[in-house]
Amino acid sequence: MTGIFQAATTALLLALLIVPASAQSRPRARDLGIPFNGTPGPLDAITDVAGVEVGFTTLIAGEGPLVVGKGPVRTGVTAILPRGRASADPVFAGFFSQNGNGEMTGTHWIKESGFLDGPIMITNTHSVGVVRDAVIAWQVQHGFVPRTSSVEGAWWSMPVVAETYDGFPLNDVNGFHVKPEHAFAAIDGARSGLPAEGNVGGGTGMICYEFKGGTGTSSRRVETAAGTYTIGVLVQCNCGLREQLTVGGVSVGREISAEQAPRSARAGAASDDVGSIIIIVATDTPLLPTQLERLARRATMGLARTGSSSGNYSGDIFLAFSTANAEAVKKPVANVQMFSNDLIGPLFEATAQATEEAILNAMVGAETMTGIDGHKVTALPHDRLREVLKKYNRLAK
Amino acid sequence: MTGIFQAATTALLLALLIVPASAQSRPRARDLGIPFNGTPGPLDAITDVAGVEVGFTTLIAGEGPLVVGKGPVRTGVTAILPRGRASADPVFAGFFSQNGNGEMTGTHWIKESGFLDGPIMITNTHSVGVVRDAVIAWQVQHGFVPRTSSVEGAWWSMPVVAETYDGFPLNDVNGFHVKPEHAFAAIDGARSGLPAEGNVGGGTGMICYEFKGGTGTSSRRVETAAGTYTIGVLVQCNCGLREQLTVGGVSVGREISAEQAPRSARAGAASDDVGSIIIIVATDTPLLPTQLERLARRATMGLARTGSSSGNYSGDIFLAFSTANAEAVKKPVANVQMFSNDLIGPLFEATAQATEEAILNAMVGAETMTGIDGHKVTALPHDRLREVLKKYNRLAK
Amino acid sequence: MTGIFQAATTALLLALLIVPASAQSRPRARDLGIPFNGTPGPLDAITDVAGVEVGFTTLIAGEGPLVVGKGPVRTGVTAILPRGRASADPVFAGFFSQNGNGEMTGTHWIKESGFLDGPIMITNTHSVGVVRDAVIAWQVQHGFVPRTSSVEGAWWSMPVVAETYDGFPLNDVNGFHVKPEHAFAAIDGARSGLPAEGNVGGGTGMICYEFKGGTGTSSRRVETAAGTYTIGVLVQCNCGLREQLTVGGVSVGREISAEQAPRSARAGAASDDVGSIIIIVATDTPLLPTQLERLARRATMGLARTGSSSGNYSGDIFLAFSTANAEAVKKPVANVQMFSNDLIGPLFEATAQATEEAILNAMVGAETMTGIDGHKVTALPHDRLREVLKKYNRLAK
Amino acid sequence: MTGIFQAATTALLLALLIVPASAQSRPRARDLGIPFNGTPGPLDAITDVAGVEVGFTTLIAGEGPLVVGKGPVRTGVTAILPRGRASADPVFAGFFSQNGNGEMTGTHWIKESGFLDGPIMITNTHSVGVVRDAVIAWQVQHGFVPRTSSVEGAWWSMPVVAETYDGFPLNDVNGFHVKPEHAFAAIDGARSGLPAEGNVGGGTGMICYEFKGGTGTSSRRVETAAGTYTIGVLVQCNCGLREQLTVGGVSVGREISAEQAPRSARAGAASDDVGSIIIIVATDTPLLPTQLERLARRATMGLARTGSSSGNYSGDIFLAFSTANAEAVKKPVANVQMFSNDLIGPLFEATAQATEEAILNAMVGAETMTGIDGHKVTALPHDRLREVLKKYNRLAK
Repeated sequence: MTGIFQAATTALLLALLIVPASAQSRPRARDLGIPFNGTPGPLDAITDVAGVEVGFTTLIAGEGPLVVGKGPVRTGVTAILPRGRASADPVFAGFFSQNGNGEMTGTHWIKESGFLDGPIMITNTHSVGVVRDAVIAWQVQHGFVPRTSSVEGAWWSMPVVAETYDGFPLNDVNGFHVKPEHAFAAIDGARSGLPAEGNVGGGTGMICYEFKGGTGTSSRRVETAAGTYTIGVLVQCNCGLREQLTVGGVSVGREISAEQAPRSARAGAASDDVGSIIIIVATDTPLLPTQLERLARRATMGLARTGSSSGNYSGDIFLAFSTANAEAVKKPVANVQMFSNDLIGPLFEATAQATEEAILNAMVGAETMTGIDGHKVTALPHDRLREVLKKYNRLAK
Repeated sequence: MTGIFQAATTALLLALLIVPASAQSRPRARDLGIPFNGTPGPLDAITDVAGVEVGFTTLIAGEGPLVVGKGPVRTGVTAILPRGRASADPVFAGFFSQNGNGEMTGTHWIKESGFLDGPIMITNTHSVGVVRDAVIAWQVQHGFVPRTSSVEGAWWSMPVVAETYDGFPLNDVNGFHVKPEHAFAAIDGARSGLPAEGNVGGGTGMICYEFKGGTGTSSRRVETAAGTYTIGVLVQCNCGLREQLTVGGVSVGREISAEQAPRSARAGAASDDVGSIIIIVATDTPLLPTQLERLARRATMGLARTGSSSGNYSGDIFLAFSTANAEAVKKPVANVQMFSNDLIGPLFEATAQATEEAILNAMVGAETMTGIDGHKVTALPHDRLREVLKKYNRLAK
Repeated sequence: MTGIFQAATTALLLALLIVPASAQSRPRARDLGIPFNGTPGPLDAITDVAGVEVGFTTLIAGEGPLVVGKGPVRTGVTAILPRGRASADPVFAGFFSQNGNGEMTGTHWIKESGFLDGPIMITNTHSVGVVRDAVIAWQVQHGFVPRTSSVEGAWWSMPVVAETYDGFPLNDVNGFHVKPEHAFAAIDGARSGLPAEGNVGGGTGMICYEFKGGTGTSSRRVETAAGTYTIGVLVQCNCGLREQLTVGGVSVGREISAEQAPRSARAGAASDDVGSIIIIVATDTPLLPTQLERLARRATMGLARTGSSSGNYSGDIFLAFSTANAEAVKKPVANVQMFSNDLIGPLFEATAQATEEAILNAMVGAETMTGIDGHKVTALPHDRLREVLKKYNRLAK
Repeated sequence: MTGIFQAATTALLLALLIVPASAQSRPRARDLGIPFNGTPGPLDAITDVAGVEVGFTTLIAGEGPLVVGKGPVRTGVTAILPRGRASADPVFAGFFSQNGNGEMTGTHWIKESGFLDGPIMITNTHSVGVVRDAVIAWQVQHGFVPRTSSVEGAWWSMPVVAETYDGFPLNDVNGFHVKPEHAFAAIDGARSGLPAEGNVGGGTGMICYEFKGGTGTSSRRVETAAGTYTIGVLVQCNCGLREQLTVGGVSVGREISAEQAPRSARAGAASDDVGSIIIIVATDTPLLPTQLERLARRATMGLARTGSSSGNYSGDIFLAFSTANAEAVKKPVANVQMFSNDLIGPLFEATAQATEEAILNAMVGAETMTGIDGHKVTALPHDRLREVLKKYNRLAK
């Protein structure tokens, strides 16, 4: 088994993987001795922020040639519920587009209102629409009324759905294999605990620095004069050229590239960064929307430390939210807490650190995958990575 | 007949109205003597900008009580093709969100790249997703490859789909009655000539200043030192309180309101502006993306002249594009033309003027509509409007 | 006396006018019967927002030909202190640039931090620098330490200084006649009560819709479910073409223009809007920075109602602040209040209304002024204005 | 001599250093074996972009205790002239604020018009005003009329002046020692060739990663399908905590910190990044304003590679301009060239690379400086730096 589920029939197999065994048994980035700064939370995951729940629907089916509408299928849906499934209370949020060759719906209202209302969904580029409307259908079915955008008796919803691209060489992206029930399953399956990493959910068919990419997560605990807070990050990582890949400050991609030629990750991609990265930052710090936008802007700095310079074809869109200030909405005048800008610097640094680690967790957690016509996208080789780090005296253990 | 098509069965009736007779026979705003500044183009429509094509799918079916998924249905889809169906050449574009309680997908890439690639679609709030993915499916079927976002052999698409809300009291918005084929039909039916106004396309179920709203269009010809250019505007108008409605500078809404109480346009809407307005500005002036964003920002000023102050619940998102500078994309270094900022002032004024007139064309062109449980949304009464304008010596004819 | 103080010598005469008699004796816009919507505060001024203080330094000296560095001088400085001179406590703030052909320093930090720290100064275009550094010098002299941008023991200041242009035909703008002491005087002279209007402070040499412009103010009281709040506006108005001028919805400028040709307000200005408008919005509503930016964006809609479409040469930059949430800064976690977005619509409308009235107060309050080589800028003729409004049955009294 | 000029009197000594011998004799970052990616231009400086000229005024005088208005003085002014002194032709430009705790005037108009008109000046925080107005005075004196903002016969100017803070422990920032003639001298002294680095111009009193900072520059040549282009960067570097300093991917700051305690760079600065960085990016690639904003946004990624996460107190504001498209202004319709977004990725990477190197050039080029009360800010020790890089096998030579 190489991490590719081989379905016996062409019918799609819906595999809802919350914490798949394969992910559990694989080491994470710091297990390999990659050096990181800062102190992670207990899970080293976005779910270290209390209340945050994550769910995945992973779709892996079919092999052989591309038949649009038939497969092969290597895709999925990720759902992040800021306050978990039990709560319809919106959160303060802010976003930043470092390079807008991507989609994240719902951002006009986040920018306007300061609130994020409902789950954050991440899927493939051509399934944003179906997932968006499915979130509304889910809200209709569950009597969930968005609280920020609408008035009583006439509610409307503007779901947040982001994407990265998983077409050739892995997935039949124009086959529209993601269906509403896959979005429902990701939401309904969301839970706390360590999320799966690598080839799961929206990250299933992703490619990162021309190795296999996917979903990754990390967290940092930050001691401040106002108490200890947590920053959690989850990425769907699909960006970068191999020669850019930087681990622990070392140009690992160049070294490994020398002896193991990258498969052209995307047709025509040899000359540029074809892919994207969605970065979700969660915190329990009582930050206002303005401050969360600041946090989102620091995700760029973590991304930069892994080597990317946000190429033209990369949709690098980042969203930050805070689980503090519950029930701030729908009161004529709400009492809210505001964390001091004077103390925010360490949160910026923690965001950069957790972003860097989440990206490497996605890559370390991913397994080699074959897709269309047997095209293979190789996982970052753990042993070679350690060798290169050792050469530069950068192994943390 | 009052403009409401009464379907004999609950099955949806797909009526593709390009230039419906009813719209043709109805007067437009300036026919009623409403005073406007500036000189319109031959059609006084967005299609005065050469190449622009507009198509509608109008869905009207069912009566009686609301049964989610059954109806009544009063909704639709509008398609605007900047260079018409024959061209896959993108256009320079810029957008502006005056109040982001709304959705317009695809804007991250417009802001990043300066290009708009593909059609502009407008529908209801809860059908943005299905229309978005349908645009991609249409592109797949027609071999249309977006030219700005992707590389050869690995293309992805980020369609631009905007919305305004048409739920209670007219449409079963949570019934998801818009299907992919309705989006296809709007695109395939797009053509030049005078577009229908009022209850058509995405504007079918709209309410504006607590009268019946919908789709409206207008244009201005602008003489400049660099030649004569056209500004065309199309709106999907669903915003405003009756007391705000201003026509020719006269607070018409207050005067009419006194004798003809508004039906609560939206449940709970008595106290605020519940609705939205999408404004699309087209021009043949060779404006760069930065300049088109400036143009989009002037739509606010035309909107303001009709009385709105962009209430919290109003998604007022504006998009401007230029049909000049064809084939600017995919050349290593393209020769493009830039209109001088020094001459741009009259284009700003023309945008405000055409926006004002397009909104009033939507209202004048709309007919009274009944929806859920027989709720009726009354059209702006033409005779009363003329009486009020006459009282203030504002009739242009 | 025509409102021009004729200094006996070429030495500058520093006239610190808080509530000059001439301004007091002149009617305000609503005294003339101009119709306005909404309910003003007791003073119909920005100072209806408790705590706000306004000070002016007005510089009028010299006549005859332009001698750069000698005069004639028709300029000044306006200071707005959000919490008055007694307080160094910053306020939440947000800004918006409708057309950025202008300067407002300090906005990078307002956008980043959400706070406005120190006074808001408005002067002429070429004196922004001297006023900016003078604010810092004033802070040094008074032991005023900006609280948001800096740490203890190493403070820096990023003053907010805006401008509109008062060169030909009135003022020797390149003579740099504004000195640090003029900025000090405006700050030190700030007080509550009705501010002067018309040819005072930074507004001294301004031209608006090709009539004499200047400083104007207005306010609105807004009843909400959370209590009654005040919106106050102060403008420094220097924008617009006469043909655009709209009062009470009537194209007054066109009517008056027909019989009283405008003096070319600015050389070369015949074809476009050469000038600018700075709009400051104050409120006691507990709005967060995100919400104040929304408020600032509504100033556009009030401006639009007076006829402008923000021409290329107009620097239309707007700043909104809230005096609520005192002492929100420098606490590790501050308890702040947030007004509901659900109730904010009437504040938007009030901002548009007060902006419209403040502009007309600036014009009605201004007196005809002669400047360089005897060039005369005529005040809006009150009697003709009333005649035109009467013609359109728009006189409120 | 330790690089501190000891003036014999308290009178200011104006030292106009174009290419000071001390800077020439010092090694640059790559001379020390610091590894960099990419290919620099002949000078490895912003002046590799043809036409760009740089001038400095360096003010170093006084010792001993701080007497406000007397000194010690360690400050200056930097001028960057995009097309050199001989040209008044504006350039396309775009900017980005990664953390707006800083000032850069003139940006509203850059964002609005897409043009940068006049020189770019960089000085200390409290001298932005004097330098701003001095630029206007220089324009008046030289008959230089800004071409983008104004009409014939009524010109106004909105100079671009940025800053970083040089107060305690080096400079009497509240003494306002920068005078108009210092700004004039920087402009008049601008020339091509290798600019001085380290303690020169606006960078004189700067501190970077708690070592001595200042002015640094670098460049990259980029081969593209449309020809070879140059990216040049100049930074005024005053940001960062020592523990963040990263060189060649190695946490150099932590290693050196262990044995050589940092002097508190700024009072109270122990816990956060107190300082700022201004990054100016020049290119000869024919980029439109939208594209230059994209370039500016990549400066963040170069900054991130040196370890910063843009702390709360850091004013990290970046400006990019293109010297292509000469004479694009003042024509009714100008023919301009647009470089393809498809090819822009390598320019992004080059911007990040040149930014990283420019920062390290500023640090390597700076010399230890003593200031107020003999406080000493230590230069980055070249030998220790090499030792640490060698430990991690990262020495390029």
